[in-house]
Amino acid sequence: MHFDYSNKVNELLERVRSFMNEHVYPNEAVYEEQLSAQSSRFDSVPSVMEELKQKAKDQGLWNLFLPDSTYGAGLTNLEYAPLCEEMGRSLIGPEVFNCNAPDTGNMEVLARYGSEEQQARWLRPLLDGEIRSCFSMTEPDVASSDATNIEARIERDGDEYVINGRKWWSSGAGDPRCKVAIFMGKTDPEAPRHKQQSMILVPLDAQGVKIKRMLPVFGYDHAPHGHAEIDFDNVRVPAQNMILGEGRGFEIAQGRLGPGRIHHCMRLIGAAERALDDLCKRVQERVAFHKPLADQGVVREWIATSRIEIEQARLLTLKAAYMMDTVGNKEAKAEIAMIKVVAPQMALNVIDRAIQAHGGAGVSDDFTLAAQWANSRTLRLADGPDEVHRRQIAKLELAKHQ
Amino acid sequence: MHFDYSNKVNELLERVRSFMNEHVYPNEAVYEEQLSAQSSRFDSVPSVMEELKQKAKDQGLWNLFLPDSTYGAGLTNLEYAPLCEEMGRSLIGPEVFNCNAPDTGNMEVLARYGSEEQQARWLRPLLDGEIRSCFSMTEPDVASSDATNIEARIERDGDEYVINGRKWWSSGAGDPRCKVAIFMGKTDPEAPRHKQQSMILVPLDAQGVKIKRMLPVFGYDHAPHGHAEIDFDNVRVPAQNMILGEGRGFEIAQGRLGPGRIHHCMRLIGAAERALDDLCKRVQERVAFHKPLADQGVVREWIATSRIEIEQARLLTLKAAYMMDTVGNKEAKAEIAMIKVVAPQMALNVIDRAIQAHGGAGVSDDFTLAAQWANSRTLRLADGPDEVHRRQIAKLELAKHQ
Amino acid sequence: MHFDYSNKVNELLERVRSFMNEHVYPNEAVYEEQLSAQSSRFDSVPSVMEELKQKAKDQGLWNLFLPDSTYGAGLTNLEYAPLCEEMGRSLIGPEVFNCNAPDTGNMEVLARYGSEEQQARWLRPLLDGEIRSCFSMTEPDVASSDATNIEARIERDGDEYVINGRKWWSSGAGDPRCKVAIFMGKTDPEAPRHKQQSMILVPLDAQGVKIKRMLPVFGYDHAPHGHAEIDFDNVRVPAQNMILGEGRGFEIAQGRLGPGRIHHCMRLIGAAERALDDLCKRVQERVAFHKPLADQGVVREWIATSRIEIEQARLLTLKAAYMMDTVGNKEAKAEIAMIKVVAPQMALNVIDRAIQAHGGAGVSDDFTLAAQWANSRTLRLADGPDEVHRRQIAKLELAKHQ
Amino acid sequence: MHFDYSNKVNELLERVRSFMNEHVYPNEAVYEEQLSAQSSRFDSVPSVMEELKQKAKDQGLWNLFLPDSTYGAGLTNLEYAPLCEEMGRSLIGPEVFNCNAPDTGNMEVLARYGSEEQQARWLRPLLDGEIRSCFSMTEPDVASSDATNIEARIERDGDEYVINGRKWWSSGAGDPRCKVAIFMGKTDPEAPRHKQQSMILVPLDAQGVKIKRMLPVFGYDHAPHGHAEIDFDNVRVPAQNMILGEGRGFEIAQGRLGPGRIHHCMRLIGAAERALDDLCKRVQERVAFHKPLADQGVVREWIATSRIEIEQARLLTLKAAYMMDTVGNKEAKAEIAMIKVVAPQMALNVIDRAIQAHGGAGVSDDFTLAAQWANSRTLRLADGPDEVHRRQIAKLELAKHQ
Repeated sequence: MHFDYSNKVNELLERVRSFMNEHVYPNEAVYEEQLSAQSSRFDSVPSVMEELKQKAKDQGLWNLFLPDSTYGAGLTNLEYAPLCEEMGRSLIGPEVFNCNAPDTGNMEVLARYGSEEQQARWLRPLLDGEIRSCFSMTEPDVASSDATNIEARIERDGDEYVINGRKWWSSGAGDPRCKVAIFMGKTDPEAPRHKQQSMILVPLDAQGVKIKRMLPVFGYDHAPHGHAEIDFDNVRVPAQNMILGEGRGFEIAQGRLGPGRIHHCMRLIGAAERALDDLCKRVQERVAFHKPLADQGVVREWIATSRIEIEQARLLTLKAAYMMDTVGNKEAKAEIAMIKVVAPQMALNVIDRAIQAHGGAGVSDDFTLAAQWANSRTLRLADGPDEVHRRQIAKLELAKHQ
Repeated sequence: MHFDYSNKVNELLERVRSFMNEHVYPNEAVYEEQLSAQSSRFDSVPSVMEELKQKAKDQGLWNLFLPDSTYGAGLTNLEYAPLCEEMGRSLIGPEVFNCNAPDTGNMEVLARYGSEEQQARWLRPLLDGEIRSCFSMTEPDVASSDATNIEARIERDGDEYVINGRKWWSSGAGDPRCKVAIFMGKTDPEAPRHKQQSMILVPLDAQGVKIKRMLPVFGYDHAPHGHAEIDFDNVRVPAQNMILGEGRGFEIAQGRLGPGRIHHCMRLIGAAERALDDLCKRVQERVAFHKPLADQGVVREWIATSRIEIEQARLLTLKAAYMMDTVGNKEAKAEIAMIKVVAPQMALNVIDRAIQAHGGAGVSDDFTLAAQWANSRTLRLADGPDEVHRRQIAKLELAKHQ
Repeated sequence: MHFDYSNKVNELLERVRSFMNEHVYPNEAVYEEQLSAQSSRFDSVPSVMEELKQKAKDQGLWNLFLPDSTYGAGLTNLEYAPLCEEMGRSLIGPEVFNCNAPDTGNMEVLARYGSEEQQARWLRPLLDGEIRSCFSMTEPDVASSDATNIEARIERDGDEYVINGRKWWSSGAGDPRCKVAIFMGKTDPEAPRHKQQSMILVPLDAQGVKIKRMLPVFGYDHAPHGHAEIDFDNVRVPAQNMILGEGRGFEIAQGRLGPGRIHHCMRLIGAAERALDDLCKRVQERVAFHKPLADQGVVREWIATSRIEIEQARLLTLKAAYMMDTVGNKEAKAEIAMIKVVAPQMALNVIDRAIQAHGGAGVSDDFTLAAQWANSRTLRLADGPDEVHRRQIAKLELAKHQ
Repeated sequence: MHFDYSNKVNELLERVRSFMNEHVYPNEAVYEEQLSAQSSRFDSVPSVMEELKQKAKDQGLWNLFLPDSTYGAGLTNLEYAPLCEEMGRSLIGPEVFNCNAPDTGNMEVLARYGSEEQQARWLRPLLDGEIRSCFSMTEPDVASSDATNIEARIERDGDEYVINGRKWWSSGAGDPRCKVAIFMGKTDPEAPRHKQQSMILVPLDAQGVKIKRMLPVFGYDHAPHGHAEIDFDNVRVPAQNMILGEGRGFEIAQGRLGPGRIHHCMRLIGAAERALDDLCKRVQERVAFHKPLADQGVVREWIATSRIEIEQARLLTLKAAYMMDTVGNKEAKAEIAMIKVVAPQMALNVIDRAIQAHGGAGVSDDFTLAAQWANSRTLRLADGPDEVHRRQIAKLELAKHQ
């Protein structure tokens, strides 16, 4: 057992950190201004983003998330963890490094399970940061916490599949660069429960794809990315858009969600670290009742508790990453489920304390706290609500005693 | 000791409840649509609001908050509590009945401490719902949790006062109908600590009043109401705009905040009740893992815990109201402080559980949950952060043992 | 709605309080010393207890728990609440006033449902404090949280019933004065689920009654009272010992448990109040890091949070009592379930903070904190675990929305 | 970074685990029976203990805690962690392997700072398990959370030191084998704050040493070990009993407490693991409301949350151990403080859930849950209360931002 990062990781980390300090944090406000200056917030992408992406690409800080060394940086999950954490400190950070959800998960699916043709058509431009993608799984009409509830249909018709269904929380579909959805639906409702679903690639400009609205998150529109509700009405795509084969949807979902979940957790740790930084700075600047807030015992308890929660969440994240690297995503399912429960709640706790320490500034957009809070809150739901993960953990635990 | 509402209250409650069902809930979406259709969200007020106000006024459901029977309904705080709770179930509810913050607090100040002239000029149109008002106390540059930190200046110059300072969280100042601010600042920085501050009426169209920006709350702009940051730059107002006299600011603040705080608590209870209603309905509609969510033990614990928290918060609110009515706001300070700590956290807990039960719908605007959550979160800060109230409670408790 | 105690209650409360101060607290140590001086802690009862009982009886502070004015003080539950709270501040308090569990519940059963003969034989001496009783319901071999699990048998044989089964947590059975058990068991295993059980009176000196052992509670033996595991092996009692009739066990249990549960809650509030008193005193006496513990912000938060939790629990207790008095135990079932969940956890929280403030003294027997904590902990299990009560609350809540 | 135990550790772990299964668990009841059969519980030590110690010594499972390879097993803290955890599953476990507090801390002090003579006289027989020792630091009359409060005196008088003071929580002093105390007191009250205190060896049979009483912990006497209150009344010891030199008491305390604290944490993890085992077994055996408790969603949440808390606490413990091994106890002070806060609360949470799942059995001595709970509770106080550790963590955190 050994608790230090390797030299390779420390060197990369230093470079990512410098990039964040030099290029990302100073441009958060610029990004927001450019966005607000647009006629519609979903029309186009603030130009600063493409400039930042180019800079990151130039420095080789690009696609670090992808363990596959053909396409990506070839880092293990464990190696990527501290880098991803660093990027997650800023809400615009991950995209700068082409490491943002849901594209990372989609790229991983295409790199692992995509045909050569699919890779050429979609993976390549995604890796190059030229297009974006979305993931259309969740449906408004059923409890998606139970994935077997999904009702959308994918039906074979000659050389094509015909796709029907309503999806929502297709995050990223608001972006004008978003060109493709990975769509999950039933190819065979009569098949065994976990063989009914398939995943297929749907170009967003296909006939019958209609973005109905963009869903806000605690008042945030998350433009231009956005969270779309989309109607798929008799959408026809070539049969070769099917990924891996009919009935393999669950299998892909499991493969996709492991890394996706842990990336979220890494980013949440970064968000929490930044919130704690903000908190520590603020309370040393502000005076109430004749002393700095930092000298209030209650504030010190917030700080200590936050540090403790972050440390524990980080260790669990790293261990889960280590296990994914060594015994595989499937064997690491307990650890992945655990960290998926822990990290969002930890981030919410830490950020909430930072908000409280900032007073009114904390709930506004003068700091990134409120926005990060809202984002973290969705992650108690996205990729499975806490309760489903806890069920899974308990099941594995009980099985040890049967 | 007696735990039933009086017949008078039950009758009024029934009428408010019917009004909410018939007129308010069905128009929440209409209000939002009208607002979104405006060229700017702060330009004007959705017309449906004025229509609803007229209806409420016609039915005599108007100014119920004001214990003073000359101007208001003459209800005690205890009698008003369940009515206010009912209004608080909708974010647009309180305004419909002319019972929304910060106007209620401002009207209370004017009714109690205003000169006849001040009452004629500002109180009358506020009572009639013709104008709105804001309260300019908190400042961006100091920790306002300690009110003695306030730095704005109010200086006498002949028949006028000259006002300088920057204020923020002047809620309601975004509304085009908002005509006046109650402004708090120092008239005599050399006076004893609690005699330095005064409150004065400042027309929002006075020269030197400049609204710099509207502050968002977790992504919500709360338009057209809004939360303004305002520069007061050598603003001159007639000397008779001073309320009660120089150095009386703290005294007024204490009087103002008691009712204001408890009204917030009553509304939070209503918000929590509605969230619990939403939760109970949702979990009976949705199925996961072969049974309705309502049959999951964890969901049942959420429901039970929510019911328990609401009941306890309501009882404490009612007792605080009772004490304000019987022994006065000052003697009730421990109870007011307690409920101010309890109610926002209780509402956050209950609403958060409801959000979790709703999945993605919960964080969006398909329900009022996310918006109510954000609103409740601000109330752990507004009118004093939790920590300041707990300090106060502890001080009173320790004093019993000295 | 009205939140003051009546004059009658205030007068009684003053008398109980004086009695506690003068006679009970000063004798807690005496009681413990006499107990420790005995050759066995279960041999006899410290003589100071009988002296105190006589004093309380002389002052008319006796059987205050019993609403029935023929036998008891004729106080309502609401009137009794603050008196019971006061008694609960001391672990030896309730017995002094003949108001201790499980005798109160047993007396209530006999007063309500007992035959004249049963009342003459058992109720009279219980009311006079001459004998003690126990309640034999819970069984070691099944999950007693589900009362239908109870397996003991009560079989008619001529003019007698034959009783078989193993019971535990028969509290009070260690006391040499304990003469009778109310025993619950199945008379008809084929009857509908809630008609299978009956309650019957079993003299503890009947042949076949064998106390196997006394169960400790976190290291406390609770001598001489004690918690017994008892074998009932072909115990024969006259048929007239049956209470109310065969198959009425559940009905009686429901009637018995309502008041029993709320009495526990009242006592827990008293225990919490005393713990908070202890805490407030201690932190003003002890100095660390150059100031009294009372000046540490964290300690002040403990105090404030404790005061808030106590106030809320008390209000809910009083409301539950009020409802039992006005609409009956059955209609008050949600409130009884709620307070049964709230009060033990509240007491545990408050006492635990007091322990922490006392350091090592807190976990020892220098204060009553550790003993009260252990007692409170059992009340998250006794008379139904928290989880069962929350199930009940949720069920009632969901029913409102069906 | 690497998360697997070394082969060496896994091999040792397997041996300790086998020993626990074969020899320790089956003898817990035997130990308790022998203890209860004694005329006094503090008279002698159950013979089974010495038998078990001999077995462990024979198998080389002895003094594993001591990193010093001259005297002990020469394991690093990180290597020792999983072994210590395993021993901590049983309350009688650590002594069997000569790894119990406070002897381990005392042996560490003597191994590091003791003179040759001190080591020959006291360390040798301690390492051999022939005698026991206690640590006399805490005082009943001051808040010992602030160690500078300690008032006991150690005064030089010729070739001797004269010792005066009252100490309590001298754990282990009840044991008839306990022969020596490490005593902390002031040699120079005029010296700088952290140079006033010294540590000195005091034979328990020295004239003037008087054990006043044994302190219970939540009703447990922890015999024969016990927690003593001791008067030191003009006790004279040879000058060479001084450890390291006058004024070095704080320095030794810091060195002593690091390992001591983390050993407690390791043991607490073992206690929590055993509680979770107990919980998982129990809920699969018991049925309520027509299904095993294990099928209740709430119970599954307990299990999942327990597993998560244990994993996180273990990782933090291991990291703290790793840092102690690599950068030293002083540099690891934040991690040591963190784990000292985390582990006791984690254990209390897990054990409390297990108690709740066991019903009445949980608070009794049918399982080790209640006893382990009480033990864990003291560890939120012993070696510094949580609050002091959090102060320390916050101070270190704030310093990063100054």
